[in-house]
Amino acid sequence: MTEPVFGKLALIGIGLIGSSIARAARAYGLVGEIAISTRRPETLARARELGLGDLYSADPAEAVRGADCVIVSVPVGASGAVAEAIAPALKPGAIVSDVGSVKGDVVKQMAPFIPEGVHFVPAHPVAGTEHSGPDAGFAELFRGRWCILTPVPGTEEAATERLARFWAAMGSKVETMTPEHHDMVLAITSHIPHLIAYNIVGTAADLEKVTESEVIKFSAGGFRDFTRIAASDPTMWRDVFLHNKDAVLEMLGRFIEDLFVLQRAIRYADGDALYDLFARTRAIRRSIIDVGQDTAAPDFGRQVVEKVTAEADAAAP
Amino acid sequence: MTEPVFGKLALIGIGLIGSSIARAARAYGLVGEIAISTRRPETLARARELGLGDLYSADPAEAVRGADCVIVSVPVGASGAVAEAIAPALKPGAIVSDVGSVKGDVVKQMAPFIPEGVHFVPAHPVAGTEHSGPDAGFAELFRGRWCILTPVPGTEEAATERLARFWAAMGSKVETMTPEHHDMVLAITSHIPHLIAYNIVGTAADLEKVTESEVIKFSAGGFRDFTRIAASDPTMWRDVFLHNKDAVLEMLGRFIEDLFVLQRAIRYADGDALYDLFARTRAIRRSIIDVGQDTAAPDFGRQVVEKVTAEADAAAP
Repeated sequence: MTEPVFGKLALIGIGLIGSSIARAARAYGLVGEIAISTRRPETLARARELGLGDLYSADPAEAVRGADCVIVSVPVGASGAVAEAIAPALKPGAIVSDVGSVKGDVVKQMAPFIPEGVHFVPAHPVAGTEHSGPDAGFAELFRGRWCILTPVPGTEEAATERLARFWAAMGSKVETMTPEHHDMVLAITSHIPHLIAYNIVGTAADLEKVTESEVIKFSAGGFRDFTRIAASDPTMWRDVFLHNKDAVLEMLGRFIEDLFVLQRAIRYADGDALYDLFARTRAIRRSIIDVGQDTAAPDFGRQVVEKVTAEADAAAP
Repeated sequence: MTEPVFGKLALIGIGLIGSSIARAARAYGLVGEIAISTRRPETLARARELGLGDLYSADPAEAVRGADCVIVSVPVGASGAVAEAIAPALKPGAIVSDVGSVKGDVVKQMAPFIPEGVHFVPAHPVAGTEHSGPDAGFAELFRGRWCILTPVPGTEEAATERLARFWAAMGSKVETMTPEHHDMVLAITSHIPHLIAYNIVGTAADLEKVTESEVIKFSAGGFRDFTRIAASDPTMWRDVFLHNKDAVLEMLGRFIEDLFVLQRAIRYADGDALYDLFARTRAIRRSIIDVGQDTAAPDFGRQVVEKVTAEADAAAP
């Protein structure tokens, strides 16, 4: 148990990320009480059933009243509307943050509504799974993962540090950068990977000569890896692409340019060009494993998971 | 233990796939003896150290002498040369097969050298990991994975059935199709996924505004999934693209076309087009899990792997 960082925490939105924060904050004793608000009544009811908070309200303004920290976890396109709704109820000295995968546009949407005397510290935990909704969250989601804070000019350093302490206590490593740089980094490490995963799954589904059932049956050759991230929440990802347009188009342009070079190498049988690229990319995988951002187990350890699951099934009464 | 399917099995090439066949054939009692030949002396020495076979030879012709089944597991570009080298030593009635990820071109390379009275049954186990070499193999690699046989006109059915029995005994599900159809199916389920994974890792490595260490640190946002398959054996994959050129270029053309449609949707903020695609692709993931071709555990079960590893470390003396 750590010293509580906040008396009252308000969570607006209680999907994969919001519910993981609720679970982690509770599990590690980081807050006094948790108020939860979310737009859809059935999601709020589910959060209550799961016992994720202490107070539940359909009205985000009611949830944030008296809160020391407010974390908005909604699709980024809804950030501005939420900020507008909660603004009048915010306590002076409170910290308002978010978890959006886009930062520049979220700052543009939310900052104008943040009242004088309230600290706005945008954040992005680089963590998640392909599952969504309040049932998908778990307290360990942020452990060993980075949380990027993008304080805006004028943000008090003490507020940034307090929020950093909260994320660190949930197991995150914390880094600070500008919203613009964040959006460029995430465009290549997250947004473009999702876009091309969605794209290839779509291409495969549209083929006439190869049936969808063949695509599914023989997916272990590589395709199945892409379907995992192409199963991520569609609303969240639509908003990411709409709200990080410039950085995504910039990185996508480079990706396509490079792909044309490869296409040409295949067409003209330039084996050396192919080999050089394929040999070079191995080193990056090694570095990712070395810094603890992925498992070294072959196939992400799927074999281990299958074994553990089979043993658990066998041991069940 | 099953009835042995072959008296003597010869394996030409002893990397991830060859060594997994050796281990599985031994573990399940499917062969009387195993002869191993491979080009590089240090790999042959390593196979001997690992005890993968009963006989070891630098000369593939010597290894195949008297073998009832020969399985060639080399980069597909080397298939023709291996077929030429072993042809004079093949026993009448023997089965010659391979494990190449490309079938049309391999048939073209190997078939002319297969003597009258020897059965040529090309095969492709759709299984693998990002690791390579004789140490990377394991007996369970083929379990639950498909093995595609592409017998050529004139192949005796009894030979195809015998090889199918061998693969089934190693845990594979077996399917038969033409080499041409195989190459089309695998282009989309395996070759294009690898190509775009290699490509995005290359694009990321070349950026000026985002450092390589940032790409590595924040890779959990999606990028790390791609680095796994981009860590696959470069020689093997160079040969796949050179020898399945037509199908790869055809599928790559479609992928790029679809990507331009997405690029345009982002540029013109067409949220509905993005949402429609992103919602559609979820169903394919579900089907892949339903048919047992991937784990349902979030993030491929990486959390489970980390937990099991941590527990094992804690339990170690």
